[in-house]
Amino acid sequence: MTVSVSSETTSQSSPPPPDSKERVSEFMKQLQDEICQSLEKLDGKGIFKEDCWERPEGGGGRSRVMREGAVFEQGGVNFSEVWGEQLPPSILAQRPEAAGHSFYATGTSMVLHPRNPYIPTVHLNYRYFEAGPIWWFGGGADLTPYYPFAEDAAHFHRTLKQACDNHHWEYYPVFKRWCDEYFYLKHRQEMRGVGGIFFDYQDGQGLLYRGPDANGPAATYSNQIGIPATRSWEELFAFVQDCGRAFLPAYVPIVERRRNMQYGERERNFQLYRRGRYVEFNLVYDRGTIFGLQTNGRTESILMSLPPLVRWEYGYQPEPNTPEAELYEVFLKPQDWANWTPPSE
Amino acid sequence: MTVSVSSETTSQSSPPPPDSKERVSEFMKQLQDEICQSLEKLDGKGIFKEDCWERPEGGGGRSRVMREGAVFEQGGVNFSEVWGEQLPPSILAQRPEAAGHSFYATGTSMVLHPRNPYIPTVHLNYRYFEAGPIWWFGGGADLTPYYPFAEDAAHFHRTLKQACDNHHWEYYPVFKRWCDEYFYLKHRQEMRGVGGIFFDYQDGQGLLYRGPDANGPAATYSNQIGIPATRSWEELFAFVQDCGRAFLPAYVPIVERRRNMQYGERERNFQLYRRGRYVEFNLVYDRGTIFGLQTNGRTESILMSLPPLVRWEYGYQPEPNTPEAELYEVFLKPQDWANWTPPSE
Repeated sequence: MTVSVSSETTSQSSPPPPDSKERVSEFMKQLQDEICQSLEKLDGKGIFKEDCWERPEGGGGRSRVMREGAVFEQGGVNFSEVWGEQLPPSILAQRPEAAGHSFYATGTSMVLHPRNPYIPTVHLNYRYFEAGPIWWFGGGADLTPYYPFAEDAAHFHRTLKQACDNHHWEYYPVFKRWCDEYFYLKHRQEMRGVGGIFFDYQDGQGLLYRGPDANGPAATYSNQIGIPATRSWEELFAFVQDCGRAFLPAYVPIVERRRNMQYGERERNFQLYRRGRYVEFNLVYDRGTIFGLQTNGRTESILMSLPPLVRWEYGYQPEPNTPEAELYEVFLKPQDWANWTPPSE
Repeated sequence: MTVSVSSETTSQSSPPPPDSKERVSEFMKQLQDEICQSLEKLDGKGIFKEDCWERPEGGGGRSRVMREGAVFEQGGVNFSEVWGEQLPPSILAQRPEAAGHSFYATGTSMVLHPRNPYIPTVHLNYRYFEAGPIWWFGGGADLTPYYPFAEDAAHFHRTLKQACDNHHWEYYPVFKRWCDEYFYLKHRQEMRGVGGIFFDYQDGQGLLYRGPDANGPAATYSNQIGIPATRSWEELFAFVQDCGRAFLPAYVPIVERRRNMQYGERERNFQLYRRGRYVEFNLVYDRGTIFGLQTNGRTESILMSLPPLVRWEYGYQPEPNTPEAELYEVFLKPQDWANWTPPSE
């Protein structure tokens, strides 16, 4: 892997088609629709309630929230499409070519908080930006179990890997690693969960890979050997669509396997405690949250990722040789889930 | 009020005495002791459990936590004394004279989360820094009610005002305003509570006042007319001690007035919901939290300010003409609490 500091760079992204914004936002809305319909069917009781909203500076969105479903204690699926004079500083630091240009951004994001502690929390976000001469796609999906199962982590990763592999065999290993690095709580020295895929700034100029210090001042990228130096807008859009559509087959079977498992106060208490890490990540580190708050986004929609009920406990440590300890020791460390095999009997 | 951009400045702070660090840290420990003893007596059931810890880079502390008391669902009182090679960037941006110098910092901080929603949450923090040629004191105390009473807000403010007034009549109005501005959730356009006092960077060179954009890149200060251009280290230390010792008389009577008030599920639910704002403030804005996480502080001690149980609810709005609505409309806006008078009967 050759690592080089990104200069604002010699090669040129291929231009987007004239109807790029309409096509991407149409896809993002469809993705929201498909996910909401399937989740309502899966839940069997909860219904998404929609709020449409406008952003005074330009654009708006539709936020959909399910509360107190049979499976989902809370789930939020948000579509938004916003535009404005100038990207916020946190993004301009990464994409200085966009300075002085108006921007357009659209995306769908989702966080599901199941009630049963055997069902993992899950997050998805796909997004598209245009600003002056540049455009890029970003996003991913990641899984956060409380009482984890290796086969669930493996299934989630394999489904996303298949979507990636259909486009290029180098996508999954790079975007899996990026996800492990991004969803990391530095102050806890813990991963948020078992990961998935994550990428940002994909503009067709080779395979961009953001180094571990995701919020640091300088962008470092790698060009993977084998990735075409220029991928077209159409190729990347097709890739993002396949990733988005891989979510339901990656997650729904996990819910079906775990939804009838019995749990008690101990499991519920641990789930509420671990949800605290989700809050810590989203408020301290998450780029989407920071973007939303910096662009005067709709606070209720941005923070609908926060769990409905959360516990903090000073000095908590799992007892050795318990399922809680196994979460920390095995599942909150990077693992090659796609190649996991069940222990032979 | 004359506003001028702080240049690194012509006047010189008076030097601290040779035993400054020992004297301040001794006071900070005494303050922790006095507060813990009084709170145990007040609670009647809960006991503070102490953890002593060391920081690998230098220094350490003693964290004390009460859980499941009769009054306090959770309370944390933390003393720490740390030193190191270099202050973190967030502070150096404010105090560039400290660059390249080792630093020393000591302080006591406290957050109390009562169970009864009629008793307000309260926060206190006093701290002292030395770094090369400079030193300063900072801190304050602020009150966050759920079901508020004007007489409680007035009592809290008046008690702190008296401590300030004993040193200079201009302290309270400036530090009260600073508190209102600092404990503000921009993304909610809400104050955290009814305030109190807050100050930072008090180094004896006139009265420093940090403008509203507390986390912005440039420091803006005002020199109040009437404050001596140079106050001695001794004067400021005496002031900080009086502020610290004003906490118990400011808060304990409020607890005594409210501890036996009956409440139900509605009040408890609203309290848990409003505690979410406390989490949002501490993780998104709080300077002490950011300092702690940036200096590789003890995460459990830093985050012991977070409430034991918290709720988020998408799109919550208080019903008009309820006590919940009154909190937003009257108490989460800046008010002249020290001059509040009961409505005449």
